[in-house]
Amino acid sequence: MSAESIDQYLDDNAQRFESEFFDWLRIPSISTIPAHAGDVKKAAEWLVARLSRLELKPELIETKRHPLVYAETPHIPGAPVIMVYGHFDVQPVDPLELWTTPPFEPDIRDGSVFARGATDDKGQLLTHVFAVEAVLKDMGALPFQIKFLFEGEEEDGSESLTEYVPTHKDKLACDCLVVSDGAMFGPGQPAITYGLRGIMAFELTLTGPKQDLHSGTFGGAVYNPAIALSQMMCKMIDEHGRILVPEFYTDVVPLTERERRQFADMPFDESDFFGKIGLKDGFGERGYTSLERRWARPTFDINGMTSGYQGEGGKTVLPCKASAKFTFRLVPKQDPAKIVKSVETHLRSLCPPGITMQLDYQHGANGLLVSLDSPFVEAAAKALEEAFGCPPFYTREGGSIPVITLVSDVLEADVLLLGWGLNDDNAHAPNEKFSLADFHSGIRASARLLLEIAKFQQQPGT
Amino acid sequence: MSAESIDQYLDDNAQRFESEFFDWLRIPSISTIPAHAGDVKKAAEWLVARLSRLELKPELIETKRHPLVYAETPHIPGAPVIMVYGHFDVQPVDPLELWTTPPFEPDIRDGSVFARGATDDKGQLLTHVFAVEAVLKDMGALPFQIKFLFEGEEEDGSESLTEYVPTHKDKLACDCLVVSDGAMFGPGQPAITYGLRGIMAFELTLTGPKQDLHSGTFGGAVYNPAIALSQMMCKMIDEHGRILVPEFYTDVVPLTERERRQFADMPFDESDFFGKIGLKDGFGERGYTSLERRWARPTFDINGMTSGYQGEGGKTVLPCKASAKFTFRLVPKQDPAKIVKSVETHLRSLCPPGITMQLDYQHGANGLLVSLDSPFVEAAAKALEEAFGCPPFYTREGGSIPVITLVSDVLEADVLLLGWGLNDDNAHAPNEKFSLADFHSGIRASARLLLEIAKFQQQPGT
Repeated sequence: MSAESIDQYLDDNAQRFESEFFDWLRIPSISTIPAHAGDVKKAAEWLVARLSRLELKPELIETKRHPLVYAETPHIPGAPVIMVYGHFDVQPVDPLELWTTPPFEPDIRDGSVFARGATDDKGQLLTHVFAVEAVLKDMGALPFQIKFLFEGEEEDGSESLTEYVPTHKDKLACDCLVVSDGAMFGPGQPAITYGLRGIMAFELTLTGPKQDLHSGTFGGAVYNPAIALSQMMCKMIDEHGRILVPEFYTDVVPLTERERRQFADMPFDESDFFGKIGLKDGFGERGYTSLERRWARPTFDINGMTSGYQGEGGKTVLPCKASAKFTFRLVPKQDPAKIVKSVETHLRSLCPPGITMQLDYQHGANGLLVSLDSPFVEAAAKALEEAFGCPPFYTREGGSIPVITLVSDVLEADVLLLGWGLNDDNAHAPNEKFSLADFHSGIRASARLLLEIAKFQQQPGT
Repeated sequence: MSAESIDQYLDDNAQRFESEFFDWLRIPSISTIPAHAGDVKKAAEWLVARLSRLELKPELIETKRHPLVYAETPHIPGAPVIMVYGHFDVQPVDPLELWTTPPFEPDIRDGSVFARGATDDKGQLLTHVFAVEAVLKDMGALPFQIKFLFEGEEEDGSESLTEYVPTHKDKLACDCLVVSDGAMFGPGQPAITYGLRGIMAFELTLTGPKQDLHSGTFGGAVYNPAIALSQMMCKMIDEHGRILVPEFYTDVVPLTERERRQFADMPFDESDFFGKIGLKDGFGERGYTSLERRWARPTFDINGMTSGYQGEGGKTVLPCKASAKFTFRLVPKQDPAKIVKSVETHLRSLCPPGITMQLDYQHGANGLLVSLDSPFVEAAAKALEEAFGCPPFYTREGGSIPVITLVSDVLEADVLLLGWGLNDDNAHAPNEKFSLADFHSGIRASARLLLEIAKFQQQPGT
């Protein structure tokens, strides 16, 4: 095996990798919209076909909802087992009118490919597939086992994988889970992310009268559900970014002084960070820096709100319904199930007369804090430095990968979170993009990681 | 002239009146939606054709937006001039899925016709056209002058008519303005409405980051516009229905003791009223009855609210925009222009850091309180009693007919507000309807009113 010959292979195939990546981006595999279920399956089949070419005998595993894709190289007794996780489903695309080019027609601008799923997570997932391809071409076989576990429900709660993992522990057993579904610290600044926030998502629907009413005939004598919704949302968070749900902060682990210093020392350019999203400053919980707020503090956000007439012009209506979708980002030790109870109790206590409330909660995940003492972390640090030309930052991240906590808990595996994206990649927003240079560096880093692991003398201890 | 022969004519032509009415309802003349401008014009042309058959030489008056329709009988020196006002535009129809039958395909159920515009205002407007037809057939000519002034922008601020009236005062001069665009007190309980609420409508748009953001990556460090909107809306009205805009109540004329007693004596069945809209009780400003809240107190209502992701499932987004359409109902003496200033100042003081606000205001109208001492009121009371079989209630109404205040002010005319609808007619809501019995009673009442006015010896003094 040789890093040089692998690099040569990567260079020789760079254009084909891009063209295959772009083909995959054309499949609108939106998991939260039932009408796109067929597209999610198509994306899975595309991946199966791709992995078949590596002679990995991939399986397309049907579930109650979206399929899983699994593949593995042969087991090598005594050698480590690495499992790569990724997801081939994508977020919805609206508001569509804000996309410069159509979300499922990949367009290259300024060295990045623009498309839904480019960075989250099709592009990042594929780096590992192409890396394994290159390493297998070079070495013929690996001195350890690689497993691929890919899902099509990450953007909608990972229910199928959540059911599948605990019932297939032997099949999925691994020493280290490798995940690329996030961002680097900054352009040219690779990172190993050791913390993720958890999440708990809700939808609150308030109903007043049985139908929309004339606001002149009825206004003043009937509780307006949209007003009730505003009032209830106001009691979820105060004007200083502090969440008002009783007992919400009980299990929050405070940041350590060491961690606060470490965050403070990072070359984080606030004005550049906020400038990129059109803001002068950030805003949030008092007494915390922007990095702390984003990485290590829990939050409340309204994701969507709807009530009454929203078309052009006016309509003098007293709407019969109002609803809000909202999410909490949680930090490690906060239990989504406890949050559900506290939120429901709190909202029921706030629901005004004449209004009935329905609270749906969609999916929850714990936060994650992984150990930096794993030999895989050491291997990854070397691989990142070789591929990107500088040592990685050790960061936490504000997002959630709900299934990661579960998989690492169930399989008792170390976790390597190696994001190749950037914070301004517009994941979950219009004009999602992924730097093609980072796409190729990601492939190289993944290949280097495999080479580093191949050097292990034996399975590292648990 | 004879009431009996007119009644006979109305009976003989009842079916034709209905069928013409239904034809008109099929034209989707929604004035607030630009794509329906052609339909508003079509509704105007239909009306012109109808009035032409009465040999009234109607005019279709083009404006910057939707046309006006005007017609008149010959002037009779010394005799009164009556002007009938109505509107042929209708409200939007969404949410469409809540309509039992399509809004522009009139359907008869339980003695009512269901269609957008049935009661507001095509059906009520037509009662006066058919009454004039019957009276002209019977009498050949009238001993006083009738003018018809119909518009196609009532649901969108009446801008064109507002410009037209002051510049055509001589043409439109009249002693009494007759308007049927409201409700009776209850089924079989005709009313003369002597008060209307004013209105001021706004749209508030809040913008945060330049695009929707990933709520994990950015949540906690960026002010969420949907949260800001909830917080600002919360400061517009408290949990007891009291409006919080500074100086909002300064010009509100308190209810007199006499009026409160009069309202209290009305046979108003609270549980029936609220039961019909699916509620057990009403809710509103403390210290006031439901009738007082609806008729004589100002209110604040959110008409629509929109932000972020509103589709199926979830989307973990921090939205870049949030907006609300809201209206105040005003009582006489409250000045919409002053309300605009107070609201804008108040909202600017509430707008949080990182959020920019835009406040649009659409159209405003003063409230109206008309004199009960007019001889036309006496004539109307007789006409209503004969047509409906019982004397009218003297009521106020919660709705607004913005142009009425203007027209009555500019032309210095008395006003007769004679609604033939019912409070549960679903004006502005799905399944709008109009009782066909009341449609015919309305025609009869209008014809009787003309006969009463024909008995006047001379133009009543101003």
